[in-house]
Amino acid sequence: MDIISILEDKKRGRALSREQIDFFVRGAAEHTIPDYQLAALLMAIRLMGMDARETADLTLSMASSGDMLHPEVGGVPVDKHSTGGVGDTTTLVLSPLVAACGGKVLKMSGRGLGHTGGTLDKLESIPGMRIDIPEEEFMSIVRRVGCAVVSQSKQLAPADKTLYSLRDVTATVDSIPLIVSSILSKKFAAGARAIVLDVKTGSGALMPTLEKSIELAQAMVDIGHHAGRSIVAVVSGMEEPLGSHVGNALEVKEAIDILSGRAEGPLKKVSLFLGAQMLIASGITDTEEKALQMLSGALQSGAGLEKLKEMIAAQGGDPRVCMDPSLLPQAPVRYAVRAKEAGYLSHVNGTALGLAAQRMGAGRITKEDVIDPAVGFVMEKRIGDAVAPGDVLCTLHASSEENARETEARILSALSFTKEPAPKARLLYALLTPKGVRELNE
Amino acid sequence: MDIISILEDKKRGRALSREQIDFFVRGAAEHTIPDYQLAALLMAIRLMGMDARETADLTLSMASSGDMLHPEVGGVPVDKHSTGGVGDTTTLVLSPLVAACGGKVLKMSGRGLGHTGGTLDKLESIPGMRIDIPEEEFMSIVRRVGCAVVSQSKQLAPADKTLYSLRDVTATVDSIPLIVSSILSKKFAAGARAIVLDVKTGSGALMPTLEKSIELAQAMVDIGHHAGRSIVAVVSGMEEPLGSHVGNALEVKEAIDILSGRAEGPLKKVSLFLGAQMLIASGITDTEEKALQMLSGALQSGAGLEKLKEMIAAQGGDPRVCMDPSLLPQAPVRYAVRAKEAGYLSHVNGTALGLAAQRMGAGRITKEDVIDPAVGFVMEKRIGDAVAPGDVLCTLHASSEENARETEARILSALSFTKEPAPKARLLYALLTPKGVRELNE
Repeated sequence: MDIISILEDKKRGRALSREQIDFFVRGAAEHTIPDYQLAALLMAIRLMGMDARETADLTLSMASSGDMLHPEVGGVPVDKHSTGGVGDTTTLVLSPLVAACGGKVLKMSGRGLGHTGGTLDKLESIPGMRIDIPEEEFMSIVRRVGCAVVSQSKQLAPADKTLYSLRDVTATVDSIPLIVSSILSKKFAAGARAIVLDVKTGSGALMPTLEKSIELAQAMVDIGHHAGRSIVAVVSGMEEPLGSHVGNALEVKEAIDILSGRAEGPLKKVSLFLGAQMLIASGITDTEEKALQMLSGALQSGAGLEKLKEMIAAQGGDPRVCMDPSLLPQAPVRYAVRAKEAGYLSHVNGTALGLAAQRMGAGRITKEDVIDPAVGFVMEKRIGDAVAPGDVLCTLHASSEENARETEARILSALSFTKEPAPKARLLYALLTPKGVRELNE
Repeated sequence: MDIISILEDKKRGRALSREQIDFFVRGAAEHTIPDYQLAALLMAIRLMGMDARETADLTLSMASSGDMLHPEVGGVPVDKHSTGGVGDTTTLVLSPLVAACGGKVLKMSGRGLGHTGGTLDKLESIPGMRIDIPEEEFMSIVRRVGCAVVSQSKQLAPADKTLYSLRDVTATVDSIPLIVSSILSKKFAAGARAIVLDVKTGSGALMPTLEKSIELAQAMVDIGHHAGRSIVAVVSGMEEPLGSHVGNALEVKEAIDILSGRAEGPLKKVSLFLGAQMLIASGITDTEEKALQMLSGALQSGAGLEKLKEMIAAQGGDPRVCMDPSLLPQAPVRYAVRAKEAGYLSHVNGTALGLAAQRMGAGRITKEDVIDPAVGFVMEKRIGDAVAPGDVLCTLHASSEENARETEARILSALSFTKEPAPKARLLYALLTPKGVRELNE
């Protein structure tokens, strides 16, 4: 077995055997195959594809390239994964709610890079919060509290780390077999038995079209199902930021606002829908209706907010932020971005908004950058909203007046208006289960 | 301009601009683009292709990535390039003959790696012969003698060096735009104005089918012609070694035997045909018939052998080998490989024969290996020849009895016999010029 013959086979469009896949995955994990050969192979896979059997083999091979956790948490370990969006804080809303309903949410999360935020960065805006938590302590928190959100161990799916970092720099991110194996190998290695996937569609998403997004979601459901996991995928829109808040501390505040019953909107709606799928996938209840009732109950009773407090306390953070979000880092400058003319907000460039937040200091441009947890902005209008001259479109939380003015220009150029009423953006497109596809229209 | 957007474009099958091509060629020459990104790009080019304009731009960009020679040699600088074969010593036969007819042969050659021999290794079997010759001295020899064969300067087409070494290890050798640009960029940079290409076809060749070999030859002729070079390509067969001798000193001996009028056969025939194309491309004569007459005259008069002596002397070698080939290194053991049964030689695995010679010590397995100039073998039968039991098929020139016996087994397993008469192997398939294709049937 050698890497050249594997490259030859994939270049000619042949399916790779399990042994060939194991060979290059081991080489990636142990750094015994040079990056240039792996890079050529990734491009060959991107262009010639992999069939379902190859993709499943690649996923399982990558999952077992490092440690495999077998969590004992007093229930079915459940995880949720989103393919990435701006202002998407569903994890912080649904994890405590699902835990309050008896779920066991084991969430290993990542940092933000590029235009989308990272859950770990958001959590670290809470004073004292620890995200590097040893495995035993992580399991113990999930057992006791019902949820924990920590950074991914370096020992899980090390082959994915090598391949993922190469994909970014070789234009091979948009490959269904590579996306599926990267996401699911980490979930399998971390021991998730129930998995809910949130596959974003629209401009700036991994997959550019709805059709391709559904194809990706279907591939993940098929492979998770064949690997014996309880798995569903939701295809959701990313025409604009899901929540109104963009920025690390601001997104934590929005999650607290929702759990406190002070805020409504698409972030709450999508969090409840995904949370309901997690309860069903965990076997805690069997219908969407019952699951949604349970979650709404936990929200109204304050049990969800209580779980968030418990989780924050367990991870060393200051739980008082849940009662008083002003304890979160505050930016020195508030600045209102106002509409110049009357009209309707018709289009939002979500990627440009994400990049505007990144340039404010909320995200990293290189991995070494230090982020400012306080900065960001709150969108006051959504697609379809009527706007009068002077209306506040967006409130900036900036580090300086100068930074605010720069950001104002970036945000205004990311928004489009029409004279005619514009339709609202679609939130949910489809639910995919091993049994089939259900169209959603919300 | 950045490499990621170039990768994105080629991945999507878009044609790259001259600026994009210059960008990555410069990055390859200066090592400012990491190998893994170049490797992914090579695979994308291999799978998505390049059109004629891109291939021409790539060739010119690579040619100008280092020094560009402008040889003043008192005539049209002419070069010949073969895509590689076993027992192929045409360079040593045709260079002196073409020089004897007034041609100016500037040959920069390479060392052998893998199953095919390298002209430089063959020349170094001549006692005292220098192949690392400074540019000015090289030009002076060509001016005075009419031909010189030296090693390629490190300053010529440095981008090709980077890309060539990556192609070998990423299974991207068999790409027409990559082959064309690699071969022609070096010829352009070395200042050749007339170029004759010998494109091999058959098993073990760069291109597996006759159709693909003709496509490759056509692409090179088109691009050379558009770059203002006088260029033709010959498509020739490699069903068996072209000459009967395989091994470094043995191949020099065979070239001397031909130039002395002692030997006939396919190597002579193909050398004369390629040499005739060189005379026409150089503008020395205008028809194949006249060119062949001139070359035959130079052979019969001994003028060709005289030129080889002059060239060897000019490059520091002992010219007496031309009168007495026994001055070349001699292997201690001679061993006759004999036929076991009656039949006809029907098929020769040329790659296996080349590898057998390599294992005898005639070639390198790694770049650091030291070769034994004396070892190799002489094929006594060609495809189509009748064979009686006990006939000598091949005479080995080995370093030891043990090595001879090992080689005997390798050679016997590379030969196939039939009871029915078998046809001879075809030598020449087609001649491609900017005006069109002429079928050859020799």
